[in-house]
Amino acid sequence: MTEGPRRGRRPGRPDTRAEILVAARNAFAEQGFAGTTIRAIANAAGVDTALVHHYFGSKDDLFVAALEAPVDPREVISAAVAGQPEQAGEALVRAFLSVWDDPGLQPGLLALVRRVLEPGGDRLVRDGFVPVVLVPIGEQLGLDRPSLRMPLVASQVIGLILARYVVRLEPVASLHPEVLVGIYGPTIQRYLTGELPPG
Amino acid sequence: MTEGPRRGRRPGRPDTRAEILVAARNAFAEQGFAGTTIRAIANAAGVDTALVHHYFGSKDDLFVAALEAPVDPREVISAAVAGQPEQAGEALVRAFLSVWDDPGLQPGLLALVRRVLEPGGDRLVRDGFVPVVLVPIGEQLGLDRPSLRMPLVASQVIGLILARYVVRLEPVASLHPEVLVGIYGPTIQRYLTGELPPG
Repeated sequence: MTEGPRRGRRPGRPDTRAEILVAARNAFAEQGFAGTTIRAIANAAGVDTALVHHYFGSKDDLFVAALEAPVDPREVISAAVAGQPEQAGEALVRAFLSVWDDPGLQPGLLALVRRVLEPGGDRLVRDGFVPVVLVPIGEQLGLDRPSLRMPLVASQVIGLILARYVVRLEPVASLHPEVLVGIYGPTIQRYLTGELPPG
Repeated sequence: MTEGPRRGRRPGRPDTRAEILVAARNAFAEQGFAGTTIRAIANAAGVDTALVHHYFGSKDDLFVAALEAPVDPREVISAAVAGQPEQAGEALVRAFLSVWDDPGLQPGLLALVRRVLEPGGDRLVRDGFVPVVLVPIGEQLGLDRPSLRMPLVASQVIGLILARYVVRLEPVASLHPEVLVGIYGPTIQRYLTGELPPG
């Protein structure tokens, strides 16, 4: 995440950045990602668009910042899949678990999951997370049918997250990460590069 | 579910059955499944234990009734896995989708998912759903390591349910059920009978 802006030219009040984030979260939740403009967010926060870009960069970056995830999912996933697509299944599971098992990050990630599962959160995922985070990763991997394959990956990853961290279903909750890599890696690999039915 | 009790000998007030259910839900949520007794539920509802058994049968049956699921998950799953364990993966996915795609059942099922994801709902799953519903299915199938394999199945099924019905993630939300059977059947089959890492 690009934080720590170069201050000086446009000071703004100290809480301006927070106000822009609140305006962005509301706008993304109400209008969806595609239906939201930087201008509308700037208007709602009572600032000009240049200040929004100054603090947050692009609309994609602002969306990720508005998620308030404790890490930028784009960086985690990109690093994991930087190697061969044929090894990406295990690498992805390993990367997810290393972030989620981190006790400093887990509370923030759980809060994010709870927001996504609240009413309106579905739109945040469909209109924002999928085009901003998920499908670009599939394109980076050079997958055929990334807009089918990446949502399948998401459907197993979110099930694993719910089982291990939210419902704390045993033995999934306490298995060693490398055992889970051995269990879930092949599933993710098949969704990424395996044969799937047409349709 | 065993409803429509033979009335006559023990009439009770008309809302007695509902009061027992409320007491059961509270007890299961607060004490867990293992820590709850029929006697404690009867005491909380101000009735005797025989009336609880009369209305709801066994403690397992009462737990399933307290879930307020629109169908008894034990019946759906048992029917699906009545054939060969080697075909159970596809059969399970097909059975889940036929129940969840039913517009008369879906609102009740979604309400159940939301209750499970609320604080305390994790305990309902861990202490109740797993021993009452999940692991017995694995035993019925004659699986090796049912207490590992069935939670793995649950982790993909709940991810599919969240993607298709809660977040409505495309294309998972609108794919034909038989396409999803082709996608998820082999995953569930591997969790049921495939090779898994030790540990």
